[in-house]
Amino acid sequence: MTPREPQHLVLRRIPIDTSRENVVFLHADCAVFPALGFRALAKVQLSYDHHTAVGSLDIVRADWLGVGEVGVCEYMFERLGVAEGTNVTLGYPGILNSTNAIRRKLSGARLSRSDFNEIVGDIVADRLSKVELTAFVCACAQNNLDRDEVVDLTLAMTGVGQTLDWGGGMVVDKHCIGGIPGNRTTPVVVPILAAHGLKVPKTSSRAITSPAGTADTMEVFCNVELSIERMKRVVEKEGACLAWGGAIDLSPADDVIISVERPLNIDSQGQMIASILSKKKSAGSTHLLLDIPVGPTAKVRHMELAASLRREFEYVAKHIGLHIEVVISNGEQPIGRGVGPVLEARDIMSVLENNDRAPSDLREHALQLAGRALEFSADVKGGDGYGLAREILRSGRALQKFEAIIEAQGRRDQPIELGAYAFEVKIGGSGRITRMDNFAIARLAKLAGAPLCKGAGVEVLHKLGEEVKEGQPVLRVYSTSPAESALAEGYASSEKGIIECL
Amino acid sequence: MTPREPQHLVLRRIPIDTSRENVVFLHADCAVFPALGFRALAKVQLSYDHHTAVGSLDIVRADWLGVGEVGVCEYMFERLGVAEGTNVTLGYPGILNSTNAIRRKLSGARLSRSDFNEIVGDIVADRLSKVELTAFVCACAQNNLDRDEVVDLTLAMTGVGQTLDWGGGMVVDKHCIGGIPGNRTTPVVVPILAAHGLKVPKTSSRAITSPAGTADTMEVFCNVELSIERMKRVVEKEGACLAWGGAIDLSPADDVIISVERPLNIDSQGQMIASILSKKKSAGSTHLLLDIPVGPTAKVRHMELAASLRREFEYVAKHIGLHIEVVISNGEQPIGRGVGPVLEARDIMSVLENNDRAPSDLREHALQLAGRALEFSADVKGGDGYGLAREILRSGRALQKFEAIIEAQGRRDQPIELGAYAFEVKIGGSGRITRMDNFAIARLAKLAGAPLCKGAGVEVLHKLGEEVKEGQPVLRVYSTSPAESALAEGYASSEKGIIECL
Repeated sequence: MTPREPQHLVLRRIPIDTSRENVVFLHADCAVFPALGFRALAKVQLSYDHHTAVGSLDIVRADWLGVGEVGVCEYMFERLGVAEGTNVTLGYPGILNSTNAIRRKLSGARLSRSDFNEIVGDIVADRLSKVELTAFVCACAQNNLDRDEVVDLTLAMTGVGQTLDWGGGMVVDKHCIGGIPGNRTTPVVVPILAAHGLKVPKTSSRAITSPAGTADTMEVFCNVELSIERMKRVVEKEGACLAWGGAIDLSPADDVIISVERPLNIDSQGQMIASILSKKKSAGSTHLLLDIPVGPTAKVRHMELAASLRREFEYVAKHIGLHIEVVISNGEQPIGRGVGPVLEARDIMSVLENNDRAPSDLREHALQLAGRALEFSADVKGGDGYGLAREILRSGRALQKFEAIIEAQGRRDQPIELGAYAFEVKIGGSGRITRMDNFAIARLAKLAGAPLCKGAGVEVLHKLGEEVKEGQPVLRVYSTSPAESALAEGYASSEKGIIECL
Repeated sequence: MTPREPQHLVLRRIPIDTSRENVVFLHADCAVFPALGFRALAKVQLSYDHHTAVGSLDIVRADWLGVGEVGVCEYMFERLGVAEGTNVTLGYPGILNSTNAIRRKLSGARLSRSDFNEIVGDIVADRLSKVELTAFVCACAQNNLDRDEVVDLTLAMTGVGQTLDWGGGMVVDKHCIGGIPGNRTTPVVVPILAAHGLKVPKTSSRAITSPAGTADTMEVFCNVELSIERMKRVVEKEGACLAWGGAIDLSPADDVIISVERPLNIDSQGQMIASILSKKKSAGSTHLLLDIPVGPTAKVRHMELAASLRREFEYVAKHIGLHIEVVISNGEQPIGRGVGPVLEARDIMSVLENNDRAPSDLREHALQLAGRALEFSADVKGGDGYGLAREILRSGRALQKFEAIIEAQGRRDQPIELGAYAFEVKIGGSGRITRMDNFAIARLAKLAGAPLCKGAGVEVLHKLGEEVKEGQPVLRVYSTSPAESALAEGYASSEKGIIECL
């Protein structure tokens, strides 16, 4: 055998979307194998100059990768910032403190603040593989983080992202843990608060597993993809905004963690608290109103669980210097009439316009929340908030503020139409409606095309307690194409328990 | 918009080795996205005729995948058994009982036998993603399986693989949980037992994380890749074999689980027990001798842990109908002089040939183990095994049996030479050797090229308690190439605590 330098390879970009994982591709006949004995899924370190990056290995036997090349997936390539064709070297990465900490957590140990800092730092630097990230999520999933560990995780996550600075004073935020279709209170609450002079630089998410996020629905009205500078100008002018949070890198660690939690469909209480509060803290909020809906098909199923979750939120918020007010609300059925961006936008406008036909549950819930948040203000006495919120809404000042925010963010030129393909879901029996399945209604709206097709969604025609007769329509499902309509209709006819009556 | 059938796609094989995960590739512009809203890492179901397969989604924007095509990785393609170019459909897979069970385990629930059957069945059918598999491994990792759950997992794993049948009577097996470099007792123990007439159809692994597995070392002498038929002929003729277990599909679930455990470097006690005992049961063994080495750098660090592990092994073995004898042995340093296939083979031959210079620790450990296993035999009284083993070894009957097994399996034509590139590791101080790091010595041997280069490895020149002077060589490291030699030398000079004296 002759001497060799097996680690020298030519960099190639491989256009594969690996969902935020660094993946390195080597040809099966590459010379590094006999020398370094790499296996598929092994972690390897790619070095160039003083830069290094760590990725998981996929082994390829294809003509689109040369024997002397090392491929990196799109995500890794963009973050490497090195041109294709560059000579790079490959080797084993050192053992990370973070992976040791994850192993300790898996075996039941308590982690320290510096452990969480190491883990979150390595998550953000893409030094953990999907498998290691999953192990971290699972190690924390068994309610295995004590309160102080959640505080440390929250602080670690806050430390690695963008931080917004609103120049002092009270900055109000509002959040709902989610799970209730149509529960689109934010576009009503924020204008009410701003009309009273509170500063509410609200960032919202797009749908992760639901048929619409607040950002998806706001996009029916206006541009939501604001740069930080543009967002600041909007807030300076109107006291509030309703922007998409994804355009700002508030919690990069959270984005990576979610990429594993989503396919796994697990919700760890500690990680949920850290995720929400770190984003609020990074967004520069000082006061947070948090909505926890409870119901048999909500994320939180019992009052005791909601009360325990509230205590945890209050503990962590206090220790990271965030004033929090938790509202436990009724989450036993969808809120409002519409589920899906266009339908929800319609509900929001009818509430803001004080329309007689506005869904009363959406209006009431929004007023409850706005009332509690108004009481953050020194000039509002405890108990006076609800009346004040109602007055701001009734007077038209909330609508006026909402329109001003839309103008400032950039109003949409053309309105978006409701989907042209519709069918109705009819009730199987007669009597009073006793059960509405939030999860099934959300799934129906997603199959119908929401949120990607904004005109798709579900209109809820009747609510719990209402009297219905056999064969009466209880849901109307809109799609923008017959194929999606057929998909949703197939689901609706196979799922019998979406709405039940007795 | 016009009606469409977005799920119809043309199958393409993508030559990527994903380490036993089903991965499905779609082009970013593929028509299924707006309709089904797939995201990267989502699980999708591919259907053709009555066949279905589930995989994780990677999204690709490259010219090697068409917009109307669906790519599947090599692993999935081979198991699909459908030709390239076939029209297949894509959709969402149903929710699996197994993933629900994994989520329940993560939240602390006890799983039933049917849960484990579902999980193991889905693992073997490749219906779990890497992320879900990791979640299962982690959910079980916190010593979270009670004894009866381990029994159920073992039975589930036994149920899905090949089972060997040796036609009744006692079938003896021997296993070590590993972690001690050079601890190659099997090729000494098996011939001793076979020489006394015991049936020992031994299958061994190749190295997973170590510098050599028994199969790697045996390959220095002879062919180890035996078909089941060939293995049966060898055992019929000689009463024993020393074959590679990987050629026989004894525990397919275990192979998949290991693909996650290896990069994660975690060892779950319950899974280790289930993995070992399910393989022994599938191999048709009735009696198992199990070696658990204990030491500060061994897998098991304290006697109490070893004792608890022994009790668990005994409980599970009893409940799956396997007779077990556990030996807790000294694992505070490497055993024998050689670490790596050729060096270990040399040690084995010197013991079997009763050479004066044979490493006494390897001979003694092998005799202890063989003695205990001989006592499985009805004609050997308790306490007589060791003396009988020593006699079989001293008489040359063990060597004779070993040579006969080599002949039956197919003796290697050309001997394999020790690597030509060597350097020595010298001791830093003077005194008696007080510590030898098993892990560091194994890593050194691996960097030197073992087990892929069979002539690479580490020769241990001095052992614990021996008197050494500063600058005296304590290890000699062999490689087959200067590059690997340099890699190992770099590690040896940076790691100061490999061997210490006082």
